[in-house]
Amino acid sequence: MSNSIGTILKLSSFGESHGPAIGGVIEGVPARLHLDIDAIQSWLDRRKPGQSTVTTPRKEADKIKFLSGLSPENITLGSPLAFVVENKNTKPQDYSFAAKSWRPSHADYAYEQKYQQPIATGGGRASARETIARVVAGAISKQILVKNNSINSCAYTCAIGAVSIKEDQLRQLAEQDLDWYSQKQVESSLVKCPLPEASGLMVEAVQQAKHDGDSLGGQVLVRMRGVPTGLGEPVFDKLEALLGRAMLSLPAAKGFEIGSGFSGTKLKGSEHNDLVEGVYQETKKAHFASNRSGGVQAGVSNGAEIYFFVGFKPTSTIGKVQQTTDKSGSTIELAPAGRHDPCVVPRAVVICEAMAWHVLADLYLRHKAAQP
Amino acid sequence: MSNSIGTILKLSSFGESHGPAIGGVIEGVPARLHLDIDAIQSWLDRRKPGQSTVTTPRKEADKIKFLSGLSPENITLGSPLAFVVENKNTKPQDYSFAAKSWRPSHADYAYEQKYQQPIATGGGRASARETIARVVAGAISKQILVKNNSINSCAYTCAIGAVSIKEDQLRQLAEQDLDWYSQKQVESSLVKCPLPEASGLMVEAVQQAKHDGDSLGGQVLVRMRGVPTGLGEPVFDKLEALLGRAMLSLPAAKGFEIGSGFSGTKLKGSEHNDLVEGVYQETKKAHFASNRSGGVQAGVSNGAEIYFFVGFKPTSTIGKVQQTTDKSGSTIELAPAGRHDPCVVPRAVVICEAMAWHVLADLYLRHKAAQP
Amino acid sequence: MSNSIGTILKLSSFGESHGPAIGGVIEGVPARLHLDIDAIQSWLDRRKPGQSTVTTPRKEADKIKFLSGLSPENITLGSPLAFVVENKNTKPQDYSFAAKSWRPSHADYAYEQKYQQPIATGGGRASARETIARVVAGAISKQILVKNNSINSCAYTCAIGAVSIKEDQLRQLAEQDLDWYSQKQVESSLVKCPLPEASGLMVEAVQQAKHDGDSLGGQVLVRMRGVPTGLGEPVFDKLEALLGRAMLSLPAAKGFEIGSGFSGTKLKGSEHNDLVEGVYQETKKAHFASNRSGGVQAGVSNGAEIYFFVGFKPTSTIGKVQQTTDKSGSTIELAPAGRHDPCVVPRAVVICEAMAWHVLADLYLRHKAAQP
Amino acid sequence: MSNSIGTILKLSSFGESHGPAIGGVIEGVPARLHLDIDAIQSWLDRRKPGQSTVTTPRKEADKIKFLSGLSPENITLGSPLAFVVENKNTKPQDYSFAAKSWRPSHADYAYEQKYQQPIATGGGRASARETIARVVAGAISKQILVKNNSINSCAYTCAIGAVSIKEDQLRQLAEQDLDWYSQKQVESSLVKCPLPEASGLMVEAVQQAKHDGDSLGGQVLVRMRGVPTGLGEPVFDKLEALLGRAMLSLPAAKGFEIGSGFSGTKLKGSEHNDLVEGVYQETKKAHFASNRSGGVQAGVSNGAEIYFFVGFKPTSTIGKVQQTTDKSGSTIELAPAGRHDPCVVPRAVVICEAMAWHVLADLYLRHKAAQP
Repeated sequence: MSNSIGTILKLSSFGESHGPAIGGVIEGVPARLHLDIDAIQSWLDRRKPGQSTVTTPRKEADKIKFLSGLSPENITLGSPLAFVVENKNTKPQDYSFAAKSWRPSHADYAYEQKYQQPIATGGGRASARETIARVVAGAISKQILVKNNSINSCAYTCAIGAVSIKEDQLRQLAEQDLDWYSQKQVESSLVKCPLPEASGLMVEAVQQAKHDGDSLGGQVLVRMRGVPTGLGEPVFDKLEALLGRAMLSLPAAKGFEIGSGFSGTKLKGSEHNDLVEGVYQETKKAHFASNRSGGVQAGVSNGAEIYFFVGFKPTSTIGKVQQTTDKSGSTIELAPAGRHDPCVVPRAVVICEAMAWHVLADLYLRHKAAQP
Repeated sequence: MSNSIGTILKLSSFGESHGPAIGGVIEGVPARLHLDIDAIQSWLDRRKPGQSTVTTPRKEADKIKFLSGLSPENITLGSPLAFVVENKNTKPQDYSFAAKSWRPSHADYAYEQKYQQPIATGGGRASARETIARVVAGAISKQILVKNNSINSCAYTCAIGAVSIKEDQLRQLAEQDLDWYSQKQVESSLVKCPLPEASGLMVEAVQQAKHDGDSLGGQVLVRMRGVPTGLGEPVFDKLEALLGRAMLSLPAAKGFEIGSGFSGTKLKGSEHNDLVEGVYQETKKAHFASNRSGGVQAGVSNGAEIYFFVGFKPTSTIGKVQQTTDKSGSTIELAPAGRHDPCVVPRAVVICEAMAWHVLADLYLRHKAAQP
Repeated sequence: MSNSIGTILKLSSFGESHGPAIGGVIEGVPARLHLDIDAIQSWLDRRKPGQSTVTTPRKEADKIKFLSGLSPENITLGSPLAFVVENKNTKPQDYSFAAKSWRPSHADYAYEQKYQQPIATGGGRASARETIARVVAGAISKQILVKNNSINSCAYTCAIGAVSIKEDQLRQLAEQDLDWYSQKQVESSLVKCPLPEASGLMVEAVQQAKHDGDSLGGQVLVRMRGVPTGLGEPVFDKLEALLGRAMLSLPAAKGFEIGSGFSGTKLKGSEHNDLVEGVYQETKKAHFASNRSGGVQAGVSNGAEIYFFVGFKPTSTIGKVQQTTDKSGSTIELAPAGRHDPCVVPRAVVICEAMAWHVLADLYLRHKAAQP
Repeated sequence: MSNSIGTILKLSSFGESHGPAIGGVIEGVPARLHLDIDAIQSWLDRRKPGQSTVTTPRKEADKIKFLSGLSPENITLGSPLAFVVENKNTKPQDYSFAAKSWRPSHADYAYEQKYQQPIATGGGRASARETIARVVAGAISKQILVKNNSINSCAYTCAIGAVSIKEDQLRQLAEQDLDWYSQKQVESSLVKCPLPEASGLMVEAVQQAKHDGDSLGGQVLVRMRGVPTGLGEPVFDKLEALLGRAMLSLPAAKGFEIGSGFSGTKLKGSEHNDLVEGVYQETKKAHFASNRSGGVQAGVSNGAEIYFFVGFKPTSTIGKVQQTTDKSGSTIELAPAGRHDPCVVPRAVVICEAMAWHVLADLYLRHKAAQP
């Protein structure tokens, strides 16, 4: 169903932006895992709004509370983990326009067509607050995976508006020699770009857009190292297909590329192929001379670094008056409404990273189930 | 499961490249639909190999045979439709290398890691022959949808190697005034690009690559008109998420963009937003001044044209000797093996188009099920 | 997944007996349904413990609280409905035995083998408190179904221990002339048996068992009238298969029969067949001379009354010392622990009824999705 | 979807009784299993019709042919196993009545209501020929399970019409000392009852019914030994719930009981509880003084023998004229049509056994996936 994701490790999420709470139920977490609740909270803290001049002013503590699935000592029972995060700073009055008009490029018109009633305040499920449940699922997924594997992730902003380090990153990733940034380095940037110069330009751009009552889009790069070989299920649940689906289900996402992506479509086969460079004698695992594949071949992980890019459009909600029509078709000037991020990308970083962990953990459990 | 796709209209596909047959089972087709088998065969004919100098020389008739779900008059019974297409022109002897080495950037190494045995001849499920089942599902999906809707599709090659008309198309699609090409126009081009000049350059490029023992990648554009509003299921089964998953599960796909895609990430919100231009008085449906959204807002169709791009890497199998290693890690010179397309893009056009119909038909039936 | 039930109308349930709360998430409820929360609460009130001398003394208010999916006016939004019922009267100290021994015929040993740790207090998910989520789902399912259909249900206790009215009911149901009891009549009996004489004997039997520190089993009869024809999905999701699965997933359920059930296996075909008696001229619907089928033929509803029986074993928890072993295998005398119903059947009535509504509502939405 | 069963080991079945073929696709079979095709065929041979005076005269060779998922040496590839069994002895002309009338208690009326067209010849999916796919799935499931486990099954007829050994079997099973019959013993009986005296009476009863143009019902007992502890997924996918659903989805099934079943509902808790008798020191596994639970507690296997009963109604198709109505409601005398078994029970034995293996294999793989 449409509010669930995952096959063995399944998240069912719920909650509207201005309703009582956002939450989810996670099935398939193995029993006897000592869950680190503080670590989960720290993921939520990275996602939460109101932390800087470049994010939405809505203030939310976003404290997680578990309702099931855990012993008093936080050991998983093997039963579903249900959790909630309360909405506290709601302002339903901001959405009085919804009876009369639709915000351009927002969920308003499409949702109204689908559900045959004006959108709920704050866009309901279309609000980025639903991503809280995704971040929790990702944080738990990581705890499942790192128990028996040495997997690491690194995610950051690689483009905002016209400021981009994407092409450089792509080139280096293909050659496998790119610096790997610590979470601390990423988090030290207001826009979550660990390269100081680019970060500075991006911050400026966002602040300028905010000042202008406008918004910006951008891109996130996610990288995963140490992923075991063999994850991904041919033919419809290929690793890149499930990563793509997870990322493209994020609010404002418009594009997804893995490995060489669209740039790679311009290369010749002889330039693009990743040749085997050698085989580790102990493990019989191959290593490769390049990594244009992005760690996945024919839908299955090959042990090389997985990396992919997600593109986000500029926030639909802007601080300017827009000339549009009301529901009867009469031209109106629509005033700005609701609080919003002038650019979703900085807060999308941790969300993309979380979804990547979830996809991998689910595929890891599926792969394990398929062993003879 | 990994060989099934769709929630209500579900395809379960099967078959290896050099096994007895490729086929599938389609559940959820409504009863009492008069299936046009010739129309389904014509979709397969568009996909089939060996048709020109720019595709693989493997010859296959690819005739469909239904095993269930139909009355003698080809009326659907409401039960699963099973179908098979026989593999006739198999050459398992071409794959004797598989015991000793892995073809670079092909499924060989990743599949061997996953299944703990050398790949089946022809790559088994990794072969593009599995897409036969997708094309059948798409052809049937179209027949379901057009019964009660006026939906049309148009898909074509918009880039091969360095030759690209993508940026032009993208600009015009956003402004909603792009020419719409007939299937005849598309099919008249060897590379399935309806613009004669670009087509000529692309054909040249593919023939040159073939001559050089090399391969090329490229991009496909798919457009859907007349899609009803309200299709797409928040939050994980958004229209773009399911389209993305379907496309990224295709062999060699590395990227997916909907609407303004990655280009749109560089625009400001005030430039990107699609303003409502007016409301049709009879239907109360909105029309928009632009279409950077690509027909989908917050995961739900808004009635505007849906358009998206899929990027394919250059074919991994090339006609050149490649320097790689055997499974013990010793450097070897790997000779070319197996038949292949020098560029998958021309044959991918019909496959992308088919998958788009399947995604829409499934979402259409899901939407119908959700009505009170 | 194992904590979800339903295909289009899907309940995902969560919560342990002595954890913070029991709850669930329901997907697939159509938008714009005005939910009657009081009616849902009244279903929970029928299920709740501590109401009489024949049920567990555990006191719980069991007040429902919705967290999502509703407008302030209780109109469904089309998004998942999440709800919680708090556990207040928990007594984890009652379960100190769990480290050392297993209660006979309870979940203890099997769960410990499965999850490799002693059971959570109160049996966790094995407690009948999980059925709270089922009752909520059933109550909502009824509101979905009755909007467009004239369906009624009637469920009651037809056997407790040796006291049984089952054979009489069965004979009359096959002949289609059985009295139909109102909910008021059913609820007026402490044991939920609307026939006063049988009810009196059953109450006596339960009170005697309770006095003896023992427990009793019994059977529930569920009847549904006005079910539309055509519900049930061949071949694995036949109506009786899904009803059976739903009922057999209830705590303590050991048997399920639909229509003539096991008694019918002793008849001849000429005695068992339900002949068509006539056809209503207006609707072209058939009516039958008998109803041994129980309203379902080949897995699909035929418009006749659906009726089925569910058998429940005597409660495993009893008030007597039992001779068993500890986990090392040494013989011990296990003292009674925890609060419990001396007979689960009276409280199972509303749970079976709720599950029947859920199964039908899901099949109703599935059937609707399959229309051309 | 309704033609699929299983979560990790999933069968999708297809095929109508008088169409070209019956078949299925099985996903989730682990790679590198050497499949014994002869053993699969021998399961089909046990099921096939036309073998004796007590079964349908329809003759079918029922030879299996695999289309995918296997290497030339019959090693599983990890991809879907597709298989077909051709229908050869079809007689569509037998079903000319379907345009005008409905056979009593058969699928005819209900299917026509569902699909809004007269049933396909032979009842289409309602024919017992669809169980071919189930038997293949069961045969493969057994091969998966016995690779790493010492599980055995034994299934036989325990009642036909008035002739029954059920109560004896039930009493002894609860005390765990019942004889275990070999497949040879079961197969040596025309009605698949290994107790010679009962078998003789049953054969007589069936032949008498056949002679009278009538039919009989009966019951099947299935027993599984050596099942690992811990299989079954609380709360909706309890072992008994999935077994019940699998059995109740069989044609003509009307009842299911596990362990003490409906008889057990008459016992007291102190009589019904299975006390722990001791613990094996090496494995720390418990053994029990009795087995009224039928090997399952709270939905999870406890290592004791699993046993359950399935009740089948008498065959709807009989050799007598029946007084019913045509589709306009006019009374008619309906002549016998089509070939049929005078009693489905003997052939149902192997089908029930197959479904039990499938349910267990799927739960085994699910349990494995849930390990940390």
